[in-house]
Amino acid sequence: MSHPHPELGSPPVLAKGGLRVTPLGGLGEIGRNMTVFEYDGRLLIVDCGVLFPETEQPGIDLILPDFSSIRDRLDDVVGIVLTHGHEDHIGAVPFLLRERADIPLIGSKLTLAFIEAKLTEHRIRPYTLEVMEGQREAIGPFDCEFIAVNHSIPDALAVAIRTPAGMVVHTGDFKMDQLPLDGRLTDLATFARLAEEGIDLLLSDSTNAEVPGFIPHERDIAPVLKQVFAKAEKRIILASFASHIHRIQQVLDAAHERGRKVAFVGRSMVRNMGIARDLGYLKVPAGLVVEVKTLDDLPDEKVVLVCTGSQGEPMAALSRMANRDHQIRIVEGDTVVLASSLIPGNETSVYRVINGLTRWGANVVHKGNAKVHVSGHASAGELLYFYNICKPRNLMPVHGEWRHLRANAELGQLTGLPKNRCVIAEDGVVVDLVDGLAKVVGKVQAGYVYVDGLSVGDVTETSLKDRRILGEEGIVSVTVVVDSSSGKLVGGPFIHARGSGIDDDAFAAVLPKVEESLARAAADGVAEVRQLQQLIRRAIGKWVSDTYRRRPMILPVVVEV
Amino acid sequence: MSHPHPELGSPPVLAKGGLRVTPLGGLGEIGRNMTVFEYDGRLLIVDCGVLFPETEQPGIDLILPDFSSIRDRLDDVVGIVLTHGHEDHIGAVPFLLRERADIPLIGSKLTLAFIEAKLTEHRIRPYTLEVMEGQREAIGPFDCEFIAVNHSIPDALAVAIRTPAGMVVHTGDFKMDQLPLDGRLTDLATFARLAEEGIDLLLSDSTNAEVPGFIPHERDIAPVLKQVFAKAEKRIILASFASHIHRIQQVLDAAHERGRKVAFVGRSMVRNMGIARDLGYLKVPAGLVVEVKTLDDLPDEKVVLVCTGSQGEPMAALSRMANRDHQIRIVEGDTVVLASSLIPGNETSVYRVINGLTRWGANVVHKGNAKVHVSGHASAGELLYFYNICKPRNLMPVHGEWRHLRANAELGQLTGLPKNRCVIAEDGVVVDLVDGLAKVVGKVQAGYVYVDGLSVGDVTETSLKDRRILGEEGIVSVTVVVDSSSGKLVGGPFIHARGSGIDDDAFAAVLPKVEESLARAAADGVAEVRQLQQLIRRAIGKWVSDTYRRRPMILPVVVEV
Repeated sequence: MSHPHPELGSPPVLAKGGLRVTPLGGLGEIGRNMTVFEYDGRLLIVDCGVLFPETEQPGIDLILPDFSSIRDRLDDVVGIVLTHGHEDHIGAVPFLLRERADIPLIGSKLTLAFIEAKLTEHRIRPYTLEVMEGQREAIGPFDCEFIAVNHSIPDALAVAIRTPAGMVVHTGDFKMDQLPLDGRLTDLATFARLAEEGIDLLLSDSTNAEVPGFIPHERDIAPVLKQVFAKAEKRIILASFASHIHRIQQVLDAAHERGRKVAFVGRSMVRNMGIARDLGYLKVPAGLVVEVKTLDDLPDEKVVLVCTGSQGEPMAALSRMANRDHQIRIVEGDTVVLASSLIPGNETSVYRVINGLTRWGANVVHKGNAKVHVSGHASAGELLYFYNICKPRNLMPVHGEWRHLRANAELGQLTGLPKNRCVIAEDGVVVDLVDGLAKVVGKVQAGYVYVDGLSVGDVTETSLKDRRILGEEGIVSVTVVVDSSSGKLVGGPFIHARGSGIDDDAFAAVLPKVEESLARAAADGVAEVRQLQQLIRRAIGKWVSDTYRRRPMILPVVVEV
Repeated sequence: MSHPHPELGSPPVLAKGGLRVTPLGGLGEIGRNMTVFEYDGRLLIVDCGVLFPETEQPGIDLILPDFSSIRDRLDDVVGIVLTHGHEDHIGAVPFLLRERADIPLIGSKLTLAFIEAKLTEHRIRPYTLEVMEGQREAIGPFDCEFIAVNHSIPDALAVAIRTPAGMVVHTGDFKMDQLPLDGRLTDLATFARLAEEGIDLLLSDSTNAEVPGFIPHERDIAPVLKQVFAKAEKRIILASFASHIHRIQQVLDAAHERGRKVAFVGRSMVRNMGIARDLGYLKVPAGLVVEVKTLDDLPDEKVVLVCTGSQGEPMAALSRMANRDHQIRIVEGDTVVLASSLIPGNETSVYRVINGLTRWGANVVHKGNAKVHVSGHASAGELLYFYNICKPRNLMPVHGEWRHLRANAELGQLTGLPKNRCVIAEDGVVVDLVDGLAKVVGKVQAGYVYVDGLSVGDVTETSLKDRRILGEEGIVSVTVVVDSSSGKLVGGPFIHARGSGIDDDAFAAVLPKVEESLARAAADGVAEVRQLQQLIRRAIGKWVSDTYRRRPMILPVVVEV
């Protein structure tokens, strides 16, 4: 396994006849998946998703892949293949199309329906090419064949990309449920045929590479849901992802069986279920689904609410119910089901919601106490099957943090791949496939691009560092007015502390020192604002540190009159 | 089960002959455990621990129980029983002893050794009473009997407190490992004897009440460690809690067997292992443990480093190794073992450390991929045994968030306790045991007391709210100088934005509006500083919100000259 290091330089010119693979997101993190393929001067993009921020990115709404390495070459882009409709695969498309609106989007029916709904909100009408499994399309110099894969959203596709440099297969997100709800299996027969022809490079989902064994069937959840529904005496409130159509299908079936009505709550849930129903992915028995407002006329034991918020998102319906800040008031005996994963990093928020709901008397069923969730990603046992079928000549793990990528590379080696044929790359690391060998050749810019409110990219790492200091320690603003000619203090110092836990009045103890230090500066003829700011920052900072062992941001404001 | 509500008032005077139980911490959170028992005007405290902050408490070092409800009655306190030596049970003792230094501390040998070491750092020499299992001591009017319990630290005790109001048993933290490493079992025979006499109220550890079944034996970890040690080709770096003496004992045994030397790294690890060794709780074969500095002379395959940092604490040795910011440089082939739990909320930090270590080539073994950790708290199966043996007349779950407390109360009911005999209280909720019935009677103040640097309690919820806004949105300071008589603007507005992601220069667009609005105010004779601040805040805030959809803190500073 190659260990790319920060000292990697810019990549050399791509060898003639070679294929270049540049991951701009998803390698080193779970999210913002995006890979750029280059052949003969043309670019094909696979996926273009967003990453959701963690606590280290305070105030950020979304994180995008960095488009700067392709910005000057947008006219060379022949298309964007979208493997499926999850946000971490399609969410950044509107931001890329802002830069060139007519890049064609290629994907399955449901995937295109989801991205089109999103683009409508951004007032963009995209060029699209709908494809389905088994279909083969030339997209510029890239001969693309689409293969059915099974995932936690219907209609997901892998793609085999043939160029004269060889065949590359990108799995997208996938697992290998052998009894999927819609009967649409990961098409191992086709992968076997491709293997026969020769898969030169396999880019493969790493999310669950550390998890031993096999993911249970999605349909194994049905009996658990039925049991929960049978026991529930009052309302049932079920939270899941707004794109998990098969999960919601099972909820509808369980509700129907018990004679309950279902209402969808929340914009994305209502929108997606509408799309899925219209396109035939969700089968809704007549009269089962009703509007929320009609629920008041039904007895509690006839009601199911399906909402989002399973990750503890503070503004989602479920969090607000837990805080009694929602029209639906949780009461003793309500049953709340979190039929979803618990994404690492969200534990505190999710447990806060569970505690809130429990406190109001709800019975809360979640993956910690019942089998109401299965993952959408192949685990180690499945990946071994997959590699033994695909027999790739080179393996490049994608979609994962470093630990996942490494675990996936090790699985490749267990199935017989030599170590130097397993390429662990990170975002921005450029891998060339030349003469059948995949090799790291350099690195391009692939930092985080932050969306905060209406701005994209304005919030930088420096702003975030300031936010972390402000958030942990607060700020002390110190304003002084000095005479512009003599440099003498004529007003202030005025103190305004926020978030520091120190009363403005407490600073009285240090103000004489600041005044003294400014007077000395004036006497010495020091008058530059920058130097005076420095004096103030040092005096206040030292006093706060000595007195409180704390380091708030000090903001000295020197006004000259 | 009673559901205490915010509207609970102050508790009435305690009925004569009754016993009052007031939890000041640990009910509604995992941490800062502290319970106050009152009988006949005297107070007995059981445990006095700290809570570690979450991301919602930015910049905070520790959270203490709120002592305000007993502050005026410290002279009535007859002693503090410490059930065991974990921080969440002893960590707040120094802060309470600052208020009255001569409150006697009662605990087992190891517990007292740990608290004394901590108090030495605070320059406090406590009054202590060492007790052991089977011992019975009158502490004021409280007749205390101590009972051996098994936990993730040696020498833990439960306590049975007899007063004329009845017998109350407080378990402290416990589990029921039937094959403990030191052979010291949770003493079910004694609990059975107490049950025979009659346990009127049982306060019982809820941490694992949601977890079905039984906790595996601590000694089950030995074969896993041995396997890891047998496979390791280079150095082994093992992180665990600095108090988990039995875990470290097993590490020492595995190292000894393979002919490796062990060095302890980190102040708390070195200190605690020294204490445990001196007191005979840790058996160290001669020559096994060496100083870190001597490791350079040993080949890699003869080295084990034992350190802290298993929770991803950024300043701990392990995090610094992951960042290449430590003298120990991780190289390809090193084995890192996290032989510890993953405390909810720490996932992001821990996975960051694992990714960092993996990136440098380490093999990382953790509870996610090997059985290198068992919990220290009884799970549901064990609690059922316990309640069937103790046959309490009233049950009050302690040590847990609401979801844990509720799950524990449900276990009590499964063993036959009537619902009204299971009291779910929160911090500050006062429960009186009168005539054999435990009942919620009121509520006292029990908020979070924040330690930040040297100050205790100065950082309030308001400061934290400010920190959250500052941390998410940044701050824009706007300074204007106005003539004190005319109210006319004579200097500024000067803008200093930090963490907002907006350039100071960008505000040029809104400054005319601010000036205009101040001019209008001057013309209207509006001169009060507060009103001018309000005008500035509104103008800037609206512009930022309209232009960027963001809400930084606006700090208007009006200087009159």
